[in-house]
Amino acid sequence: MQIQYIFELIGTIAFAISGALAGDERQKHDWFGISFIAFITAIGGGTIRDLFLGSYPLVWFNDMYIIYAIAFGILLTGLFYKQFSRWRTTLLLFDTLGIALFTIVGLEKAQHLGANPFISVMMGMFTAVMGGVIRDTMINRTPTVFIQEIYATACIFGGIFYLILESFGVERNTNFILSGAVIAFIRVITVKFNLSLPKFYK
Amino acid sequence: MQIQYIFELIGTIAFAISGALAGDERQKHDWFGISFIAFITAIGGGTIRDLFLGSYPLVWFNDMYIIYAIAFGILLTGLFYKQFSRWRTTLLLFDTLGIALFTIVGLEKAQHLGANPFISVMMGMFTAVMGGVIRDTMINRTPTVFIQEIYATACIFGGIFYLILESFGVERNTNFILSGAVIAFIRVITVKFNLSLPKFYK
Amino acid sequence: MQIQYIFELIGTIAFAISGALAGDERQKHDWFGISFIAFITAIGGGTIRDLFLGSYPLVWFNDMYIIYAIAFGILLTGLFYKQFSRWRTTLLLFDTLGIALFTIVGLEKAQHLGANPFISVMMGMFTAVMGGVIRDTMINRTPTVFIQEIYATACIFGGIFYLILESFGVERNTNFILSGAVIAFIRVITVKFNLSLPKFYK
Repeated sequence: MQIQYIFELIGTIAFAISGALAGDERQKHDWFGISFIAFITAIGGGTIRDLFLGSYPLVWFNDMYIIYAIAFGILLTGLFYKQFSRWRTTLLLFDTLGIALFTIVGLEKAQHLGANPFISVMMGMFTAVMGGVIRDTMINRTPTVFIQEIYATACIFGGIFYLILESFGVERNTNFILSGAVIAFIRVITVKFNLSLPKFYK
Repeated sequence: MQIQYIFELIGTIAFAISGALAGDERQKHDWFGISFIAFITAIGGGTIRDLFLGSYPLVWFNDMYIIYAIAFGILLTGLFYKQFSRWRTTLLLFDTLGIALFTIVGLEKAQHLGANPFISVMMGMFTAVMGGVIRDTMINRTPTVFIQEIYATACIFGGIFYLILESFGVERNTNFILSGAVIAFIRVITVKFNLSLPKFYK
Repeated sequence: MQIQYIFELIGTIAFAISGALAGDERQKHDWFGISFIAFITAIGGGTIRDLFLGSYPLVWFNDMYIIYAIAFGILLTGLFYKQFSRWRTTLLLFDTLGIALFTIVGLEKAQHLGANPFISVMMGMFTAVMGGVIRDTMINRTPTVFIQEIYATACIFGGIFYLILESFGVERNTNFILSGAVIAFIRVITVKFNLSLPKFYK
């Protein structure tokens, strides 16, 4: 559990960085604007999930470590954003860790609150991707999740995988790690080999 | 009630189709992106209403038929989107059925939860139009509801009509049908004769 | 308290005007579209705050005076929008009054609901600025709060100032006025001398 929480904080930092990097030079965002986008990217998914489930207090309400993690991500970006363009692979790994963990954490939370399997998987995926959707909507970009890579789909597959293992009685911690690994694996493979979902309109 | 529920599902399918059609070829949305937009278009209005009213669980939380209806709408669009451009009138009728029903359903739900008449009418209109507003915001289009046709205004008139009939003691099912018909009538007439609200800035 | 409420209504009118002015002539918004944007600008911040805090009913649910204030703001804009371009300073003062009051009102509400100091200040700032963020997102404009003036930052400083005075035992009404004045002062000074936060990307 302790280790899982540390992973969650790492995922939060990764999401904060991806938010801080989203405002580009043309748009001339100031420090506040960048921080705002970073926060929303990092906590947006969990917030939407909790609002949809009616789960109060929201996840960040009593947990200052989440706030510190986001602040740390913003600071890192401010100091190293030039290097970050060269560290693309490192960032991808962090982000992949983030969505893998957030998906399963979100799925489990929905389950505990009585959601059926379909809704649980959706809530897991929402936890992982909605921060990015809100980020892109706010900066008037087509949400990348709609057009690029098998991002959300990896979360959905990982969520389904978790439910299948669970129905076979696999122990929870093992399941958590295996399902998270499935998400990370799909994501890394599809980015490496540049795979994507078929376009809707032929 | 059973018949009303079937109408609601038809309205949901219509909204899902309008969502799936919203991502156009230029934007190269993949299947996931299209499905996501279709879901949000179909459940967005009811979700916003329930969040605003604090009504949990949200409307789609325990009702898989709504999910099936949306999936069906997406599938239809994937198979027939080329024909849909020729079936514009058919789609308009479905969509009109959808907003007529959703407006009155939303209004009644708000009333049951203690909303005053103004808020009830607004919640009815929100139920009908907010899915489309979120859809358009996500694909970076000016929400059509702001600039085209007397769309939301038809919902507001229908909602007021419902409250007036109710105050005269008209029986609920009759009222439901009459008020829904008012919304559908206004919408069809204004589309047919290309009427629109006066522009705000002269 | 009575006086504070009147100030809040004035702030609401100012926010409604800024919303109604946001749809420009090119976009050809009709009366409904303008009214919708004005409502969301005026109540968006308080609504987001209440949703995040799980505080039901939402602030506008039982208070028709807020609705009247917004309607009045829309009417004023419809009648005088040409003059408003010349009254820029007057509008700025109203808007400044609005964010000053909304920040402290939002902060106090979050405190009463058990938020820690950081979250309280954030909720105060959210109450003041989120209406404008949603407004700009809906009309596909980069939210001005991200790029212009020390707007949200003034709210954050005022909120911190409030908490400091409170910790020194300053009486609440005095604190309310002083902290609100700090926000208004920072905002007016920065607009007058055209100050802004440093850009994030050098």
